[in-house]
Amino acid sequence: MPAQTASRVASLKNVATRLRIESIRATSEAGSGHPTSCCSAAEVVSALFFAEMRYDPRDPKNPHNDRFVLSKGHAAPVLYAAWAEAGIIPHAELLTLRRIDSDLEGHPTPRLPWVDVATGSLGQGVCAAVGIALNARRIASDYRTYVLLGDGESSEGSVWEAAEAAAFHSLDSLCAITDVNAFGQSQPTPWQHDMEALAGRWRAFGWHTLIVDGHDIVAVTDALDAARGARGRPTMLLARTLKGKGVSAFEGKPGWHGKPLKKGAELDAALRELEAQIVPEDANGDAGPAWRGPVYDSTETPDVPPSLPLPAPPYEMGQEVATREAYGDALARLGAADARVVVLDADVKNSTFSDRFEKVAAKRFHQMFIAEQVMLGAAMGLAARGAIPFPSTFGAFLSRAYDFIRMAAISNLNVKMCGSHVGVSIGEDGPSQMALEDLAMMRAQPNLAVLYPSDAVSTELLVREAARHTGPVYLRTSRPKTPVIYGKDETFPIGGLKVLRSDADDAAVVVAAGVTVHEALTAWDQLRARGVHIRVVDLYSVQPVDEDMLTRCAKEAQGRVITVEDHYAAGGVGDAVASALAPAGFTVHRIAVREIPRSGKPEELLDRYGISARHIVTAVLRLVST
Amino acid sequence: MPAQTASRVASLKNVATRLRIESIRATSEAGSGHPTSCCSAAEVVSALFFAEMRYDPRDPKNPHNDRFVLSKGHAAPVLYAAWAEAGIIPHAELLTLRRIDSDLEGHPTPRLPWVDVATGSLGQGVCAAVGIALNARRIASDYRTYVLLGDGESSEGSVWEAAEAAAFHSLDSLCAITDVNAFGQSQPTPWQHDMEALAGRWRAFGWHTLIVDGHDIVAVTDALDAARGARGRPTMLLARTLKGKGVSAFEGKPGWHGKPLKKGAELDAALRELEAQIVPEDANGDAGPAWRGPVYDSTETPDVPPSLPLPAPPYEMGQEVATREAYGDALARLGAADARVVVLDADVKNSTFSDRFEKVAAKRFHQMFIAEQVMLGAAMGLAARGAIPFPSTFGAFLSRAYDFIRMAAISNLNVKMCGSHVGVSIGEDGPSQMALEDLAMMRAQPNLAVLYPSDAVSTELLVREAARHTGPVYLRTSRPKTPVIYGKDETFPIGGLKVLRSDADDAAVVVAAGVTVHEALTAWDQLRARGVHIRVVDLYSVQPVDEDMLTRCAKEAQGRVITVEDHYAAGGVGDAVASALAPAGFTVHRIAVREIPRSGKPEELLDRYGISARHIVTAVLRLVST
Repeated sequence: MPAQTASRVASLKNVATRLRIESIRATSEAGSGHPTSCCSAAEVVSALFFAEMRYDPRDPKNPHNDRFVLSKGHAAPVLYAAWAEAGIIPHAELLTLRRIDSDLEGHPTPRLPWVDVATGSLGQGVCAAVGIALNARRIASDYRTYVLLGDGESSEGSVWEAAEAAAFHSLDSLCAITDVNAFGQSQPTPWQHDMEALAGRWRAFGWHTLIVDGHDIVAVTDALDAARGARGRPTMLLARTLKGKGVSAFEGKPGWHGKPLKKGAELDAALRELEAQIVPEDANGDAGPAWRGPVYDSTETPDVPPSLPLPAPPYEMGQEVATREAYGDALARLGAADARVVVLDADVKNSTFSDRFEKVAAKRFHQMFIAEQVMLGAAMGLAARGAIPFPSTFGAFLSRAYDFIRMAAISNLNVKMCGSHVGVSIGEDGPSQMALEDLAMMRAQPNLAVLYPSDAVSTELLVREAARHTGPVYLRTSRPKTPVIYGKDETFPIGGLKVLRSDADDAAVVVAAGVTVHEALTAWDQLRARGVHIRVVDLYSVQPVDEDMLTRCAKEAQGRVITVEDHYAAGGVGDAVASALAPAGFTVHRIAVREIPRSGKPEELLDRYGISARHIVTAVLRLVST
Repeated sequence: MPAQTASRVASLKNVATRLRIESIRATSEAGSGHPTSCCSAAEVVSALFFAEMRYDPRDPKNPHNDRFVLSKGHAAPVLYAAWAEAGIIPHAELLTLRRIDSDLEGHPTPRLPWVDVATGSLGQGVCAAVGIALNARRIASDYRTYVLLGDGESSEGSVWEAAEAAAFHSLDSLCAITDVNAFGQSQPTPWQHDMEALAGRWRAFGWHTLIVDGHDIVAVTDALDAARGARGRPTMLLARTLKGKGVSAFEGKPGWHGKPLKKGAELDAALRELEAQIVPEDANGDAGPAWRGPVYDSTETPDVPPSLPLPAPPYEMGQEVATREAYGDALARLGAADARVVVLDADVKNSTFSDRFEKVAAKRFHQMFIAEQVMLGAAMGLAARGAIPFPSTFGAFLSRAYDFIRMAAISNLNVKMCGSHVGVSIGEDGPSQMALEDLAMMRAQPNLAVLYPSDAVSTELLVREAARHTGPVYLRTSRPKTPVIYGKDETFPIGGLKVLRSDADDAAVVVAAGVTVHEALTAWDQLRARGVHIRVVDLYSVQPVDEDMLTRCAKEAQGRVITVEDHYAAGGVGDAVASALAPAGFTVHRIAVREIPRSGKPEELLDRYGISARHIVTAVLRLVST
């Protein structure tokens, strides 16, 4: 960006004033919202949208547009006002803010095509921005990524995960701006306006760090210019601002977070005050907002599905392979054929086996170190820009990123999570490493597909299904080796199940998944020896479930349904099956882990916590005898 | 600690060598574990346990013992070896590591009386240490808190939340040590041995920061001495170490994380190598481990239950009070009577109303800013040391701390979480602020009590029940005002429910909780006008549930059971009731939020997402007609 002319500066100042006016008007009309958080950011947003960023306002999804993420999502009205100023949405629509019939929600969501990721849970947008910046490399684009944070938000650890990741990956196309208005929601921030203290942190984390007066258009545009010149590291622009800037009723005052002005005298006085701040513009000059226009060919579409058919899973029946290892090999094969596939790790690649992908596609493998939040957040950003990211770690540690998963679901992003080392079957490492609530947390999200393979073939094919599926997916893999039970020609559509054993006279149906499929097959053998026939179902798709087929199995197995899972009793396979069968009037006997487990050998733990073949046999015999 | 004599140094060196020997032997015997992570920390642990810390090894729970938290929990064997060295457990027991019949688990848990909080999920121990240090102030004790982190662990954002919180609260009784061995699990850490880069971060976060050779006993003890002298800020001691120190097979080598030496030649060679490192000690001097002994009266018990009876809840029937506001007032009244009660906030105290407590007990109110992980982690540390902490924030943002909640459950800690602003009934702020999966995530933990009040009286009394209960509790509060429906003399035992409406000829039972209780009562009115009688149940205790009473209600209401909740369909009230009724053969018709919601007015959203009185009426009529 060239140095600003006086008339451009006047124009950008007036944009900022208009952004304030629109933000205040809209929040007053809605009767809720965060006008003071908008006012502090007005010059920064004006400078970004009307002097700095390259984007085509007619083509929000253009892969080469510069990107903007509003990490401080509660300032949504100033973003919406910027779009109106840019001609993207009508000004009148701003007054529909927060209405049930408006897409201008209280916090931004991807219902709006200019929003990549939903924000409003603080500390997440900056993590997504890391992923968006990584994506520019993937598609060899020179687009830049901008993210606006709040200062209160900077207490979130995820911000520092993003700080480390962006510096480690030398993301010089990333420019973050912190709106340092010194107030959180309920009190001043810890550092208030100590700009040097804040700058010291970002510098210590390896960022190119600048301090500016966030209400000085020239200072802000100059700093953005300097950011663009930085090489090898991301830039943090710390903008010293006043919360509520421009309106004397609340400028720099505590107690005004998330409070709109009352319509009538209070609002009118503020509007008059702001209108008086409009400065003269040069009628013959470059007055009015402008963007420099796209410098790319907007017809370019970097992301295309793979053309080659993938090979059949290279496994033989009975071969002993852990599903976590099959996951790594499946990723490697899929990744070789599909340039959209990206893998993110939290320093456990040799346990999840995602290192198999790294070996074949190192450039699309991103080490995020032991920082699950930025791993998920970066995956969200990548997914929003056309990649198919597979963030993977121990299932237990995905709980670290549950707020991100929640927001990924709200955004319906194409994030494909893999959690390994689930359940008590991991053995000696003990409960801290066992995912026993991951199914519950993933199933709670209504649009999240939950897949749970039991052998190498189903793992390989479910990895492919996950990649094909639109929306978030969770794949649950296990530590122990299990025999291959499926032929290479099987299919595993999301929402399906497999009936592994059935007879006309089945006395009960046992619904299992993952390692318990093998326990159920052992139980089938043992019961058969006693003359009792059971149906065995592999519920590889825990969400959505195949209600029709489950109901049919329940009917054909005399209404006796047993579920068995390496997971706590609430929220997992048992609840999924019970919910599916309720309309037909069938209830479920749930076998699951019902207490906090401890260290031990896998087989000892399966037995101690009641989910081994022996317990299935006992449950079937008890149920059949009643 | 006085400067070390030569003979003390020799003694401490030999302790370190013996810790290595025991760690290697135990992990080889177990066939799994992390010997290299133990070896790097041996001198630090030796110096802490045998030169620095004041504790009574016969009385692990003494409230004035110095505390040690092993944040890098995978180094458990070196901790267990230190206890053996101190005479706390027999040396022979070390070889039971990771066995199902041993409390020496793969990662430390509070099954062991010297462990305050379970660790093994990285970045949590240091947050707990913040709480333990805060607790020293609460009980006016001069005990110090030590926490040992790994360097890989320092990528976790929660570490930086702890860093900020400890500095903000001037916790000079807190001394953290980072074992900088330069290796994570799968590859070198981002900064490897760049000690100055690491130190810059901690200094920027306001810590007294020292760099030492972590294998130099004198340097370590001197640094611990300096830490004790620091005033007004916590100390970080960055110990440069070699992973696997002392054993040439793996010292400083990659690829050895989490791998024991093979029993036989490999182990024997390592043991011989270590035994050769034993140095001569002065037989007449102060050879052998020693602690300086307790300097406190170990019979002192600072925590006593409140003696005064609490006043009755000051509400009148029909009064409109939001349960979140009743929560704040209940906390204030409880906190005035019970010095164990502590409240932690994440900068939303004016929304959760925990600021009512701050007004009456500011010293026991801890502002953790927008950092939910350290809020929960600090609560875990406080709970481990006798406090009854109530960390509260929006229910949605407790998802940020789910990994901590999981670990709090593993530790069975007395943490009383409150999540406000749950469900679509919050209205215009939109989905990012709505907790719709919190019941699922909390219920998944088998030992977590989940309470969900519907009015001010039940809120007040459930806050008291939560405080009285042993173990983790979640209290779910709502944003809208709701009328008081209970008299002051009601009781709300955990595991109970309230039948609000019943008739001999009830055609169905509607089980509701929180805001939907009021929708159900409205539906009762409307159905009654149409001659249909329903039973209305307030399931204020969502976990555990009153199975007997629910079953009786189902039986008496002709087996027709409807649940209605302001929560997603999976994992909440519906699943809890279905699970409870399954043994009696009753199924449940679940009314819940089944898609990602949007902004709008609360009443609009209740209706749009199908959980309002109108939908209950429709569901009852449909069920009754079939």
